[in-house]
Amino acid sequence: MEAITSAHLCNFLAGAATVAPISTRRRQANAFSVRMGLKEDGPSLAVVGVTGAVGQEFLSVLSDRDFPYRNIRMLASKRSAGKKLTFDDKEYVIEELTPESFDGVDIALFSAGGSISKQLGPIAVQRGSIVVDNSSAFRMDEKVPLVIPEVNPDAMAHIKLGSGKGALIANPNCSTIICLMAATPLHRHAKVLRMVVSTYQAASGAGAAAMEELLQQTREVLEGKQPTCNIFKQQYAFNLFSHNAPVLSNGYNEEEMKLVKETRKIWNDPNVKVTATCIRVPVMRAHAESVNLQFEKPLDEDTARDILKRAAGVVVVDDRVSNNFPTPLEVSSKDDVAVGRIRHDLSQDGNHGLDIFVCGDQIRKGAALNAIQIAEMLL
Amino acid sequence: MEAITSAHLCNFLAGAATVAPISTRRRQANAFSVRMGLKEDGPSLAVVGVTGAVGQEFLSVLSDRDFPYRNIRMLASKRSAGKKLTFDDKEYVIEELTPESFDGVDIALFSAGGSISKQLGPIAVQRGSIVVDNSSAFRMDEKVPLVIPEVNPDAMAHIKLGSGKGALIANPNCSTIICLMAATPLHRHAKVLRMVVSTYQAASGAGAAAMEELLQQTREVLEGKQPTCNIFKQQYAFNLFSHNAPVLSNGYNEEEMKLVKETRKIWNDPNVKVTATCIRVPVMRAHAESVNLQFEKPLDEDTARDILKRAAGVVVVDDRVSNNFPTPLEVSSKDDVAVGRIRHDLSQDGNHGLDIFVCGDQIRKGAALNAIQIAEMLL
Ligand SMILES: NC(=O)c1ccc[n+]([C@@H]2O[C@H](COP(=O)([O-])OP(=O)(O)OC[C@H]3O[C@@H](n4cnc5c(N)ncnc54)[C@H](OP(=O)(O)O)[C@@H]3O)[C@@H](O)[C@H]2O)c1
Ligand SMILES: NC(=O)c1ccc[n+]([C@@H]2O[C@H](COP(=O)([O-])OP(=O)(O)OC[C@H]3O[C@@H](n4cnc5c(N)ncnc54)[C@H](OP(=O)(O)O)[C@@H]3O)[C@@H](O)[C@H]2O)c1
Repeated sequence: MEAITSAHLCNFLAGAATVAPISTRRRQANAFSVRMGLKEDGPSLAVVGVTGAVGQEFLSVLSDRDFPYRNIRMLASKRSAGKKLTFDDKEYVIEELTPESFDGVDIALFSAGGSISKQLGPIAVQRGSIVVDNSSAFRMDEKVPLVIPEVNPDAMAHIKLGSGKGALIANPNCSTIICLMAATPLHRHAKVLRMVVSTYQAASGAGAAAMEELLQQTREVLEGKQPTCNIFKQQYAFNLFSHNAPVLSNGYNEEEMKLVKETRKIWNDPNVKVTATCIRVPVMRAHAESVNLQFEKPLDEDTARDILKRAAGVVVVDDRVSNNFPTPLEVSSKDDVAVGRIRHDLSQDGNHGLDIFVCGDQIRKGAALNAIQIAEMLL
Repeated sequence: MEAITSAHLCNFLAGAATVAPISTRRRQANAFSVRMGLKEDGPSLAVVGVTGAVGQEFLSVLSDRDFPYRNIRMLASKRSAGKKLTFDDKEYVIEELTPESFDGVDIALFSAGGSISKQLGPIAVQRGSIVVDNSSAFRMDEKVPLVIPEVNPDAMAHIKLGSGKGALIANPNCSTIICLMAATPLHRHAKVLRMVVSTYQAASGAGAAAMEELLQQTREVLEGKQPTCNIFKQQYAFNLFSHNAPVLSNGYNEEEMKLVKETRKIWNDPNVKVTATCIRVPVMRAHAESVNLQFEKPLDEDTARDILKRAAGVVVVDDRVSNNFPTPLEVSSKDDVAVGRIRHDLSQDGNHGLDIFVCGDQIRKGAALNAIQIAEMLL
């Protein structure tokens, strides 16, 4: 077995300490199928931020799901321009992102940070592209649908591919997606009145460089050295800290307010009460969330478990006897959000409260997969 | 600088990647003071489980606080008997724990697990010792006081040293102590009606061997090897999982139910509503807890912050501008419980809700320090 290197970061801890690269895994799964992706009548795609943690996962998900495409533009910063990249056995040259990058592009998948989205998202729309944006730039814009396909697909029903008109669709924050994948099926049944969320967020949520910093710091601490702090201002290895997003005057950080506000928008319910405490833990990939729910109508834990077992994109892992519950490691590189620790909340009267524990790969369902599911709904 | 070895475990990550051993630190702090501990008229002590994570911390706290003692018995299992140990510049031989170990002992500090406490605690009491027990064996026993000195000292007011009568006093669970150190001052002011707790628990809470396993697994994962799972049944390095305590039929694990039940007993309030989700995170030492509070009377965040600033054993770390809040690393080997992220809960109407984030060294305030503070109240 080989040691972990930074090149392995995107696969790091995906299911086990060592894992086959995504391309190999896919090839095994599809050994007898014909490669479907490259299609004359598919849309023309652009991946903006293709070298990043989410960008790399876009490619992996496109490939896994045989997303049809006529051609695909690999876009990143000047730093990466000219570098080569192999996707679906074909070699691509990474191009520098410019306004012209979007000429003729039908669907542009953005994951290069909020300021790039703000700057180039509207330009791509002007040039006729449908932008699926992973940043927070447009999420709370009233005119922009904020979509989890399993939760509120109708919000984007008016956006059509091939109409010649560009449009923006926002991908929710990763913690919001993971939480609502579990909470929405229960909300549909019993209406959530209030939700108290505490998160356990992985390094990958802060991008590829953050994963690398956690790895480097861990090595340094084990060797008795001072940990290098570039991305985060404090030691991350064997430690945890309040999420590094700026703290607002109400004492919540921006990550927490995303959970509060995006939930209201996605559920189209301005009255739903949400509070959140967002914490970064020294996990490489995939977020976990402890969610306490208060319902309008009664909902017992067995009914809740049945509802979640039937929910699309959700897997129930809830074995009390063998103490087997969701973990970030188990969901890494998986599509489904795992839910467990489903139990009647002892602190609420009657059958109006539940506690659950949710884990989801936030680069996958929390970002790339959700965006590509949105793109699939356009086809 | 030297690399981390298992011998460093108890100091591991105490404040920084490298740290002076406890004995050195103490000597620096007290360079001009006279050693107070060994005193002819002090009580005779026994430390049961002296080789363990908590046992070692007992010695460190006794020394730090110049706890007076006439003599001290170092007790552990047969495995450790005969080994030598230096404490306060004096050499001791570790003895095997037997019923006779308690003859002439005034105060016995127990931390060798619940079954040892159940078996030998009552014997020590019969022989006239006052037992301060760190296990869960007697915590919910109606006749045994469950004490956090800053919270409910009166519960043990009837127990006197030198009366010739033995007695049992229980130390609460570490997560309960850390939570209630922060919640009690607020509870006194505005009465807590309901508390939703999510924990982020360190390896040290499961003892010295668990810390060693996290260290070993981390090395193995970095080298691309399969992690060794002896203490925990699954990968802990770069992962997290629901607390390994057995899960009860109500879906809560025992660790969570300790928070629920011990809070009621310590606050002497059978009606206080508590729910908890306990999670182990790959942190070496010190627990963190996200606590959502619901009050009977209004309590705004500024008043709450002032109350906490004045509370004994609590330090407020709550700098929103520079994003500086409590971390397990910062509180490692510290006495005080750190509280931050103090904010009005957006999900509750009026001024009846707060969110806080608490960190405490659970080997210190969560175990050894709290027990020795109890012993100090006996002097
Ligand atoms: N990580 C997650 O779990 C997650 C989840 C949801 C949403 N998001 C969002 O997705 C976005 C990217 O996150 P990430 O984690 O993938 O970050 P990352 O690993 O740091 O990748 C950043 C990407 O943006 C590109 N980029 C940076 N500056 C650029 C510029 N001036 N022009 C063109 N491209 C530029 C980078 O290209 P170079 O390599 O050339 O610098 C790289 O491809 C962020 O908005 C983030 O909030 C991330
Ligand atoms: N760790 C914490 O943060 C924490 C907090 C609160 C309470 N506690 C409680 O404190 C107790 C000890 O925890 P720990 O973390 O210190 O565990 P640990 O590191 O595993 O130490 C266990 C100690 O118990 C001794 N022991 C085991 N079997 C024995 C026997 N048959 N006779 C005499 N001594 C025996 C061991 O001695 P050998 O070295 O000879 O085996 C060792 O000294 C547990 O009840 C735990 O629940 C722990």
